[in-house]
Amino acid sequence: MDEIETTLVEKALELIESKKYAELKRLVKHQEPADIGEIFEELSPEQVALVYRLLPKELAAEVFVEMEPDNQELLINSFNDTELRAMLDELYYDDTADIIEEMPANVVKRILKNASPDMRKTVNELLKYPEDSAGSIMTTEFVRLKKKFTVEESLELIRRVGIDKETIYTCYVTDNQNRLEGIVSAKDLLLSPLNKKIWEIMTENVISVNTRDDQEEIAQMFGKYDFIALPVTDNENRLVGIITVDDAIDVMQEEVEEDFSKMAAITPSDTEYLKTPVVKLWLSRVPWLLLLMISATFTGMILSRFEASLAVLPALTIFIPMLMDTGGNSGSQASVTVIRGISLGQVEFKDFFKVIWKELRVSLMCGGVIGLVAIGKVMLVDHLIMHNDDVNITVALVVAITLMATIVCAKLIGCSLPMLAKKIGFDPAVMASPFITTIVDAVSLVVYFSVASALLPNFH
Amino acid sequence: MDEIETTLVEKALELIESKKYAELKRLVKHQEPADIGEIFEELSPEQVALVYRLLPKELAAEVFVEMEPDNQELLINSFNDTELRAMLDELYYDDTADIIEEMPANVVKRILKNASPDMRKTVNELLKYPEDSAGSIMTTEFVRLKKKFTVEESLELIRRVGIDKETIYTCYVTDNQNRLEGIVSAKDLLLSPLNKKIWEIMTENVISVNTRDDQEEIAQMFGKYDFIALPVTDNENRLVGIITVDDAIDVMQEEVEEDFSKMAAITPSDTEYLKTPVVKLWLSRVPWLLLLMISATFTGMILSRFEASLAVLPALTIFIPMLMDTGGNSGSQASVTVIRGISLGQVEFKDFFKVIWKELRVSLMCGGVIGLVAIGKVMLVDHLIMHNDDVNITVALVVAITLMATIVCAKLIGCSLPMLAKKIGFDPAVMASPFITTIVDAVSLVVYFSVASALLPNFH
Repeated sequence: MDEIETTLVEKALELIESKKYAELKRLVKHQEPADIGEIFEELSPEQVALVYRLLPKELAAEVFVEMEPDNQELLINSFNDTELRAMLDELYYDDTADIIEEMPANVVKRILKNASPDMRKTVNELLKYPEDSAGSIMTTEFVRLKKKFTVEESLELIRRVGIDKETIYTCYVTDNQNRLEGIVSAKDLLLSPLNKKIWEIMTENVISVNTRDDQEEIAQMFGKYDFIALPVTDNENRLVGIITVDDAIDVMQEEVEEDFSKMAAITPSDTEYLKTPVVKLWLSRVPWLLLLMISATFTGMILSRFEASLAVLPALTIFIPMLMDTGGNSGSQASVTVIRGISLGQVEFKDFFKVIWKELRVSLMCGGVIGLVAIGKVMLVDHLIMHNDDVNITVALVVAITLMATIVCAKLIGCSLPMLAKKIGFDPAVMASPFITTIVDAVSLVVYFSVASALLPNFH
Repeated sequence: MDEIETTLVEKALELIESKKYAELKRLVKHQEPADIGEIFEELSPEQVALVYRLLPKELAAEVFVEMEPDNQELLINSFNDTELRAMLDELYYDDTADIIEEMPANVVKRILKNASPDMRKTVNELLKYPEDSAGSIMTTEFVRLKKKFTVEESLELIRRVGIDKETIYTCYVTDNQNRLEGIVSAKDLLLSPLNKKIWEIMTENVISVNTRDDQEEIAQMFGKYDFIALPVTDNENRLVGIITVDDAIDVMQEEVEEDFSKMAAITPSDTEYLKTPVVKLWLSRVPWLLLLMISATFTGMILSRFEASLAVLPALTIFIPMLMDTGGNSGSQASVTVIRGISLGQVEFKDFFKVIWKELRVSLMCGGVIGLVAIGKVMLVDHLIMHNDDVNITVALVVAITLMATIVCAKLIGCSLPMLAKKIGFDPAVMASPFITTIVDAVSLVVYFSVASALLPNFH
């Protein structure tokens, strides 16, 4: 599939280079808007404006929606008012609102000036909803039916207004106060006798969401219920919009990428990696590295405290990286699992003790195995093969006990911190591996030196 | 939304407890299959069989598909052949194939014995496709049209056969050899005059996938193109099935969870965390902890080599955790970014040098800042506040230089390993932070001691 796309972009670029615009027009006419959008990313500003004008009107608007904001801005600035109005006519209101959010103030002003009064009103309303809320991703263009309509009347209505609706596959039945009474799918309409009434075939007890509901929870509902659209109501239970599955998929992908970023201690961004400027990448990474480096000061302080003891028995230093890494890995196994569980709505704060109890057992079992293997490894590698005379069975025991204790602590910290973060309103994903590693590092060193002090006579 | 679900399950359990089955029947009748499925997870085996029989036939089959495999097996064993046949009649072929994959041999035999010849044949074909391929997730129940049909004839055909099709919103136009010629959406049909011919309104140049294509790439296509279904063709270009958006969402979620697991060094599983037995969690985690612990042996060996030098200047030990953590975090920032880029099809092997060049610049900028701050931090905290006399400006310089070098190495290793892994056919996600941390640990220690040997007179 990738090959086809590359060929399309390459072919298009060739035709543009050699100014074969008629051929280019034929080439792109039957392509998907998302693929045509990719061609524009490779063009110079002058070429963007030129090639865009080769597209048929309707396709042009679809491609416009798929473009990067900088190209959208460039094109709007190249349009005269008539051209801008013609383009806006073809856009859905929710897409227009999304575009406006990315534009500078003067462009926004021009868009709103040239929009139809209806579009202006709806777009202004959409822009008022908080970011990441149902209201901010919904569309207001859907088919409304009345209970008393017949199937035939409904099909006629769809034929009349359907062209401007984002989906006609779910139609919404509302009363005179605009409250949602039921839904009828296009499948129901097509498979029912023409004289049936809508109230006879509609589904009541419709699952709906509120304009202020969080977009991530809504995206999860699409995964669970296999919907292709979901109605959105306001606080007075009036139907104000719908969310379609394609927007839910976008949200899903966005939220997942955000979680991945946060878990790797990066400030999330919605630009593709290869298209992100180096300075922006740097800004998204360096504050976290600084914060984590500074917080490692505590680990350093613990080591300082035992500096003299380590000088007496330097062999103990050898095992510090292994202890820290194993602690870090154990912790992130637990934290990533719990963070995903929270994101998917499978783990909640009320499960706190259930989770702790589960991780306690898992960590004891992991710790037992790792501890035993560690004794073997220390005696075989460090004592026998490396001939390190300072390493004896007591040292091996200290390492093994520390490993076990570290794994248990790491897993308990790793599973509980994300749940606590969620409880007090923080993002659980930010609590992920890097922070837990720092805490676990400190804990593992304290355990290490405590166990060493207890078991090794000349260490204190 | 969560509150509603909890209430449904709780209410249902109450009614079951008090044996109010008529009321229970009314309660569940209008609920979503996915929600009803959750009730069954809380029931005893006898209750499962009893409550299932309260559901109306069609809803019962929909709920069956949503159930956990153990409940499905339990129910099939409780069915007599007539009941089993009635249930199978209501299932889509692809759902039947999915269920069969989770059942033990004797149950599979009974299902196939009671399936219609048509279902048996299709299911057997579906089961032959490799796991994670388009063939394994496609459905064979879709609407086929011919080019010469009128819109009216097509709508009549849909009315006749549509009830058994997984979607009627995209219809597929095939020639006599069953090759895909175009698609027509239900919207096109509803909005076109009844006497138009299909060839006049169909979309040619349809994007399709092959039965052997990877499911993850296909799921990405849904995100990109906003499809609600995608046709699947075989090697002779014959249309053999379609993939619907709900299945694509499931794949997306599955693949994301797999990536999260691999990045946290856990063997992926498709059971929810809270439902996974402790032993299974342990088995998915302990081999990775072992492997990573063993590989930390190399870091230990490097420290061994410098044990004597560290004894002379134990202050250097203090900074080891900070160096290792910063290296690990820098590395995973780069690796997670590149791994996600690969997963989303945004980064390919041909971008290798572009990525390296980008990370080199980012890492130099990160390293510069971190190095400068580290000098300040070491002099302020360790020298001035902690009064560690062994720590002077030269030691601070050693730490700063090592940090810079480590960050550059970590980012270069972090970005290149996943791409190399992908190139030689490994899963890039498995190359993620834990492995990179281990490698970076070793590198950072070698750098640390080399810089120390060069700059500190009594360290060698």
